[in-house]
Amino acid sequence: MSVKPLKVTVTGTSESPTKLAVSVRDFSFIIDEPAMFGGEDAGPNPVEYALASLAGCMNVVIHLVAAEQGVDLRSLRLTVKGELDPSRLMALPTENRAGFEGIELIAEFDSDSSTAQLDEVLRLAGLRCPVSDNLGNATPVIVRLAAPAELEAALVVG
Amino acid sequence: MSVKPLKVTVTGTSESPTKLAVSVRDFSFIIDEPAMFGGEDAGPNPVEYALASLAGCMNVVIHLVAAEQGVDLRSLRLTVKGELDPSRLMALPTENRAGFEGIELIAEFDSDSSTAQLDEVLRLAGLRCPVSDNLGNATPVIVRLAAPAELEAALVVG
Repeated sequence: MSVKPLKVTVTGTSESPTKLAVSVRDFSFIIDEPAMFGGEDAGPNPVEYALASLAGCMNVVIHLVAAEQGVDLRSLRLTVKGELDPSRLMALPTENRAGFEGIELIAEFDSDSSTAQLDEVLRLAGLRCPVSDNLGNATPVIVRLAAPAELEAALVVG
Repeated sequence: MSVKPLKVTVTGTSESPTKLAVSVRDFSFIIDEPAMFGGEDAGPNPVEYALASLAGCMNVVIHLVAAEQGVDLRSLRLTVKGELDPSRLMALPTENRAGFEGIELIAEFDSDSSTAQLDEVLRLAGLRCPVSDNLGNATPVIVRLAAPAELEAALVVG
């Protein structure tokens, strides 16, 4: 059995050194930084969206796994926490990594199922959630200039 | 020299098996899935937010590095692409990982600087961007049930 690969493309236009106007399918939203990081606070910042994407993904997969396991969920609330040292970002000397040292997702359920059953749902969901996988395991990230042909294509399209 | 660690907390309330209402500081937004994945398409989906968070982060760090290097940027447009096999998410047999196999960020600049200078800005930005670090390198992700004391605290707060 094979499933069609999911191809995802997101574009962002810089509106200031901190503010990015993002377009994806029919949606658009703003990413910005608070004033303490030089922004206008016109939207959540990049690392907040990163943690939110994990919560959004786990919501989907927790419900999927719970249904498979016969675990009823009347409600679900997710809290995601992370802590990072901005030194590397700011080019200050540090041994610490640039991003979150670790990420914690805390789930609050209203359910008649046992703690053991809910623990198992979380464990399985963590293994199947794409965002959990991309954060938890190394993912090749290529950063490059657009090739001339891509720039021409962009002009033609838009 | 030491910098205060940045602590980030995001909360999400499940409004359906695919829809999460996210709160972070004074902001709120919706994550959902399109109809083909069982959602109401009330917002971008989790993996789209994940790619957008990388674009938002790189926008900030590219501008930071460009200013340090004396590289002028009149405009910047970022495209982020990724492809994933949904088999593991759907519990179908697969050797593929759950998340994106790789992520590509393509930058289009309007600048008088040389290609070599712009390449160097991108290289340095990729090393200092927190989201690029968290995706590019393994990050411990802990997924757990809320402890009883955390539930009581949530009730008191509201």
